[in-house]
Amino acid sequence: MSSDDSHDRPRQPARRGFLKAGGAAVAASATLGATLAQSPAQAAEAKHRPAAADPYTAVEPFYAPHQGGIVTPQQAHTYVAAFDLTTTSRDDVIKLLRQWTESAARMTQGQSAEALEGVSEDKPAPDSGDVLGLGPAGLTVTFGFGPGLFMSEGKDRYGLASKRPAALVDLPRFNGDQLLPEKTGGDLYVQACANDAQVAFHAVRQLARQGYGTLRMRWGQAGFLSGPRGQTPRNLMGFKDGTNNPPTADAAAMKEFVWATAADAPWMQGGTYTVVRRIRITLEHWDQMEVGFQEQVFGRRKYSGAPIGKDKEFDTVDLDAQDKDGNPQIPDNSHVRLSNRASNDGAQILRRSYSYNDSTNFYIERWPPWRQETEYDAGLIFVAHQADPRKGFIPINEKLAKFDMMNQFTTHVGSAIFACPPGAKPGSYIGAELFEA
Amino acid sequence: MSSDDSHDRPRQPARRGFLKAGGAAVAASATLGATLAQSPAQAAEAKHRPAAADPYTAVEPFYAPHQGGIVTPQQAHTYVAAFDLTTTSRDDVIKLLRQWTESAARMTQGQSAEALEGVSEDKPAPDSGDVLGLGPAGLTVTFGFGPGLFMSEGKDRYGLASKRPAALVDLPRFNGDQLLPEKTGGDLYVQACANDAQVAFHAVRQLARQGYGTLRMRWGQAGFLSGPRGQTPRNLMGFKDGTNNPPTADAAAMKEFVWATAADAPWMQGGTYTVVRRIRITLEHWDQMEVGFQEQVFGRRKYSGAPIGKDKEFDTVDLDAQDKDGNPQIPDNSHVRLSNRASNDGAQILRRSYSYNDSTNFYIERWPPWRQETEYDAGLIFVAHQADPRKGFIPINEKLAKFDMMNQFTTHVGSAIFACPPGAKPGSYIGAELFEA
Ligand code: HEM
Ligand code: HEM
Repeated sequence: MSSDDSHDRPRQPARRGFLKAGGAAVAASATLGATLAQSPAQAAEAKHRPAAADPYTAVEPFYAPHQGGIVTPQQAHTYVAAFDLTTTSRDDVIKLLRQWTESAARMTQGQSAEALEGVSEDKPAPDSGDVLGLGPAGLTVTFGFGPGLFMSEGKDRYGLASKRPAALVDLPRFNGDQLLPEKTGGDLYVQACANDAQVAFHAVRQLARQGYGTLRMRWGQAGFLSGPRGQTPRNLMGFKDGTNNPPTADAAAMKEFVWATAADAPWMQGGTYTVVRRIRITLEHWDQMEVGFQEQVFGRRKYSGAPIGKDKEFDTVDLDAQDKDGNPQIPDNSHVRLSNRASNDGAQILRRSYSYNDSTNFYIERWPPWRQETEYDAGLIFVAHQADPRKGFIPINEKLAKFDMMNQFTTHVGSAIFACPPGAKPGSYIGAELFEA
Repeated sequence: MSSDDSHDRPRQPARRGFLKAGGAAVAASATLGATLAQSPAQAAEAKHRPAAADPYTAVEPFYAPHQGGIVTPQQAHTYVAAFDLTTTSRDDVIKLLRQWTESAARMTQGQSAEALEGVSEDKPAPDSGDVLGLGPAGLTVTFGFGPGLFMSEGKDRYGLASKRPAALVDLPRFNGDQLLPEKTGGDLYVQACANDAQVAFHAVRQLARQGYGTLRMRWGQAGFLSGPRGQTPRNLMGFKDGTNNPPTADAAAMKEFVWATAADAPWMQGGTYTVVRRIRITLEHWDQMEVGFQEQVFGRRKYSGAPIGKDKEFDTVDLDAQDKDGNPQIPDNSHVRLSNRASNDGAQILRRSYSYNDSTNFYIERWPPWRQETEYDAGLIFVAHQADPRKGFIPINEKLAKFDMMNQFTTHVGSAIFACPPGAKPGSYIGAELFEA
């Protein structure tokens, strides 16, 4: 806590007008529609447009062919959450999705901040109020549907079973998985990303409140990325993370690897399949390793981020390169070799992960030497978008789970998969194509 | 994860020179020394100096009469941690404190970021490397000594028992406390604050590593504040938090309320006593309350932050003010009335708290209706500095714990108290006055 003007933090955003959701939304949608119709070169150009200087006044479109938060340049903070539906009424679900759509549209355009101004004191708080004055802060809200929406404990609660896309598979059990039920699964997914931690959390908190009586929260998790703009952020293992993602500005690559087609579910056209894994990293153990060993684990240099044997971060990963003794430069069981497209029949996924850092966990070891251990509960909220997880996350992770040298330091404790539908049309709602068709 | 230049985050810091800890430290110390010798008016002036435009290049002095992170304008992120000493050797403790002092001096001046450049690959990683390129980011590191340094399980391990300040009391049990041992206490305290979450965590992580064999971590916790510079941040309950703190720019107020004197422990002259409480807030419950009720709980207006009955955030809290029916404007059991200096014999503390937001917790209620509940594990890392906790936190919290209307929504689950010594002198180390005198 601190008094007036003593914060070494970004400057106050300009006061925004009270945009009406409808009007703003249509305008935003029209703009993005135009962007999507561009050539890849034009799109690449657009990607390099200067970002808003003030992270609090930045606004992302909501009504658009694709949902925000998928190919959107990654904001610094996230709050991800999954919910289980408790209602048995299809209408309740539609009502909730309508309300969520309107609220998300409003919040992404920065209008929740004013929700308390002039509000009568004897009404239930319409908004938690913790982001008053903060601005839209680049907020995106991404919604997804888990397998349980289509079939839960053998019941087709909402008459949707026949619409379940074949690509929305139940994830197999991977080697080494130590999944906790309370960090796994979920019927509905909400991922809020923003330039401010409180703005991201606020969005999920408001949507969760609206669902009281219809759903309950299954899990929620805050995540963050650090680092100056224009650099690939480093994860908690100290390596640049995200370097070899397919470029989001390349519309052809996004079409090939990220956007679902109508092939197995017409309502998913323009959507994507999202896999979320809560991966704990034993930082204490990792920190005791030699830098050279750490680099072997990833197949990349720590300081520069370059593939081993190369100089620069964005130099091509060449799996055939050998050192002077004829050994592979990029080790056999390194993370980068195993996950590279050349090892996976060309498969690519769009990773959009965040670090997480909860408070410490406390363990008492039950075998000698009996002792207490306090460990960081920190790691990666791995988030990957793809056109089809059967060709993306699943085969890549099958390989990683078995062979990746990194596994000594990581444990997958949470897991979920969702079908994220296309963006909502103004006046309509997220998932309308599923419910109305 | 994201590729080059796609982050909507602060710009890249200018490349810094490789400052030598000694030289930079002396210069910084001299500057702060001069600041401290100023009149209150001059100090107030200094407080309003423009902050560094780039949050990543901001630097706080380390070697100075007072430790950083106490009256320093509050940075946006923190990582707080407490450690238990496992060594029985006084020399080990001194060695550790020397190493911590040097490392903290180096990190606060932004030098850890280069630690990997040019480092041999076959050496243990000298640094986790996750803040490479991030800059000092306004980092401060504040050290403190818990009661266990002076006496632990009846043993005076380091020959310091006679030096324990009377003000470093064991905190009493307060009404409603539900303290978890693994979130409570600690022999040594480290609080890192910075403009970036990873920079704050990195500092504690490096210091913890240096202590392997000498100590073990007891608890650690990340915290954050949101909001544009120049505004009082709102906590997760949606209220502005920190408004009525004694002004840090007022040297006389700091002398009276924050800085310890030589009276009961000469080595604490220029230090402070710090109380840390992990206070969980049931946000789900709070969010169901009417705005008017929420305002009664605090005694302040939600939107403006003004005391009830007043217009502006910084209007004076007048506990005698009555409404037209002759009832007190600021309710009897409101948080602000109970904690205000007028209710506490003039006592004041300097609050420097952060919000925390860990992932959700999962409960199974064991009585009917048997059901699962997932709740946010979120709240406030309450941090208060004061000249003497027997006149500050303890009497104020005695009152709050019994009567505060806010208690319906909060639970104190962690607690600790520390004596934070004065700042280190160049060439010396934190706590030298305690060990060498
Ligand atoms: C804690 C867990 C993980 C960490 C710390 C991590 C870190 C990294 C790092 C540092 C890189 C190299 C830089 C880059 O190209 O982004 C990388 C690449 C990659 N990772 Fe991971 N990763 C993790 C888990 C996973 C998982 C679970 C998958 C998928 C199943 C995965 C898929 C990939 C892919 C596809 C690449 C790009 C490889 C290439 O084509 O060069 N990662 N990861
Ligand atoms: C979750 C826990 C808490 C929350 C959310 C909270 C929030 C607030 C808020 C919103 C204010 C009014 C604005 C301001 O002046 O800063 C305030 C004031 C204050 N609080 Fe707390 N507080 C909490 C716990 C505590 C505790 C444990 C103490 C001390 C034992 C404390 C001591 C104070 C004091 C001294 C003031 C200033 C009152 C005045 O002089 O007007 N607070 N707090």
